[in-house]
Amino acid sequence: ADGAAYERALERHAGLAKPPGSLGRLEDLGARLAAIAGRCPPPIPSSPAVVVAAADHGVHAQGVSDWPQEVTAAMVETVAAGGAAVNAIARTVGARVEVVDVGTLRLGPVPGGVHDERVRSGTRDLAVEPAMTIEECRAAIGAGARVAAELIDGGADLLVTGEVGIGNTTASAALIAAFTGAEPAEVTGKGANLDHERTPHKVEIVRTALARHAADTSVEARGSLGTLASLGGLEHAALVGVMLAGAAARIPVIVDGVITGAAALAAVALCPDVAGYLIAGHTSAEPGGRSLPDRLGEPALLDLRLRLGEGTGALLAVPLVQAAARVLTDMVTLADVTKTA
Amino acid sequence: ADGAAYERALERHAGLAKPPGSLGRLEDLGARLAAIAGRCPPPIPSSPAVVVAAADHGVHAQGVSDWPQEVTAAMVETVAAGGAAVNAIARTVGARVEVVDVGTLRLGPVPGGVHDERVRSGTRDLAVEPAMTIEECRAAIGAGARVAAELIDGGADLLVTGEVGIGNTTASAALIAAFTGAEPAEVTGKGANLDHERTPHKVEIVRTALARHAADTSVEARGSLGTLASLGGLEHAALVGVMLAGAAARIPVIVDGVITGAAALAAVALCPDVAGYLIAGHTSAEPGGRSLPDRLGEPALLDLRLRLGEGTGALLAVPLVQAAARVLTDMVTLADVTKTA
Repeated sequence: ADGAAYERALERHAGLAKPPGSLGRLEDLGARLAAIAGRCPPPIPSSPAVVVAAADHGVHAQGVSDWPQEVTAAMVETVAAGGAAVNAIARTVGARVEVVDVGTLRLGPVPGGVHDERVRSGTRDLAVEPAMTIEECRAAIGAGARVAAELIDGGADLLVTGEVGIGNTTASAALIAAFTGAEPAEVTGKGANLDHERTPHKVEIVRTALARHAADTSVEARGSLGTLASLGGLEHAALVGVMLAGAAARIPVIVDGVITGAAALAAVALCPDVAGYLIAGHTSAEPGGRSLPDRLGEPALLDLRLRLGEGTGALLAVPLVQAAARVLTDMVTLADVTKTA
Repeated sequence: ADGAAYERALERHAGLAKPPGSLGRLEDLGARLAAIAGRCPPPIPSSPAVVVAAADHGVHAQGVSDWPQEVTAAMVETVAAGGAAVNAIARTVGARVEVVDVGTLRLGPVPGGVHDERVRSGTRDLAVEPAMTIEECRAAIGAGARVAAELIDGGADLLVTGEVGIGNTTASAALIAAFTGAEPAEVTGKGANLDHERTPHKVEIVRTALARHAADTSVEARGSLGTLASLGGLEHAALVGVMLAGAAARIPVIVDGVITGAAALAAVALCPDVAGYLIAGHTSAEPGGRSLPDRLGEPALLDLRLRLGEGTGALLAVPLVQAAARVLTDMVTLADVTKTA
């Protein structure tokens, strides 16, 4: 991101028709958008798109979820048919929805309208072995990057990250603990479960996975990519690809909650400069929800106690990002106003 | 508002395709919209409109503001010309902007595109005498109600409150202190001033006004209307009219920051049922900014540290309100999804 454009945007804000600083967090956000685009005023995003990455998880075998794995594929169909929460909220903010099956368990073909980028049918059980090989992880990153690049070629100028995957809060907790050093109990929540009955068991599974990974002295397991492959999900890897593609195209990427946040920690670990292109959209009510905002050094834009995923919280932040860009373009200066007075 | 519709909306949410409760505050918000409209699912607001009420304040003579009073009329022209922050944000969320001059100081005619509802040229100095007579206050309430009713007749289905008025944070602090019993020092901030140099003086002026009003034993001064007339501004009164008209038409009204929040406290004091139609959109960074959310019993939807007024914070909450309604209409049920699984 471009520090000079950031400074020019803050200067511009100081001269606009309002008390200095009175647009609060929109001012810094607008300056970040200028830094991302490398120009001030920044372009006003007009074509947001949410990428919903879907996959299943071998760790489901450990009894971490109240839901059967079939729900993942069923939710992919629901999103493709337009009946999920992400669709309703995307319509509200004028975003297109793209679903990528990067590895759900399914017998039949991927339904129409869904990007078929299946790397394998679910990950391996991260409690007992690496969830992905490095090659599989790379393939999933490539899938996400490919879908994002297609969207950008098609005119998308603001990317939003979403996901579907029964079991993926367990993998997310493992990634967050590995990338931040947090205690598993601090970053593991009930996820989509109805209550906290399984949460202590989820914490134990995360501990087991972290110990298994720490003991893995192979070259493959080392480094950020090795950590992502060992503990993450195929949808995490695909979302890393989305973030890398957004940053490469100088397009802002809004991060949603705890799963996309875990992917963002992996993306930033792989490539620290990506942080400058990420916007924390919503603080998940899940305990790991603050990990990415903490890493970016500022709270998420929204805190509405959502814990649904799919990209719902991040989509709700789209108008805030658009507004932050638009005030830098549309507002007259204080000098213009006082000339009239 | 309709308690049965509220309950039906919560029941509906419990069966939608997501973990129960996972849409967080959007679930209660959607139920409130159902209660407001008296039906479930509630209508999805598609024609939001912000009413920007503008007036000047006699208390300016006490040296409470860094800005000359001419800035009020100049900002009215800026909003009418489309160059203010409120215009940029209204464009982002698809809201129309209606400016009402309910009593600015101006020599010439009200500019084109501005509703001419002038009751008088600014209020009297609330530190030394009632700011308005009861008749003037009623006229300003009527002006706001008239503009809102016209908007509703024209199809507006979501009202947003905004204001412009140099000196109006002082009147707002006096209203908030009077209606909540808060200490003046707790609810008086720098407002549009560049720093806190004048804040202790503003606190003293608010104390003086409250003492003056408390000592006023006339029949006129008693009751909620008397308090509004004595301590408020013409724009506060006009916004009370907007809120009453919205509630009467069963349309939600999003409240912005400290000035519109002060008006909301007056509206609820006049007519407690109005509270059910008000949505706290954004917590102003001003110290009195939490008064209305506290009165409504829940935090505002957004907290982006804005302290600009004009309706900017409330407008940013428009998509959240639309999304809360839309999920109740567009989402399929969990039973639909598990049938597929």
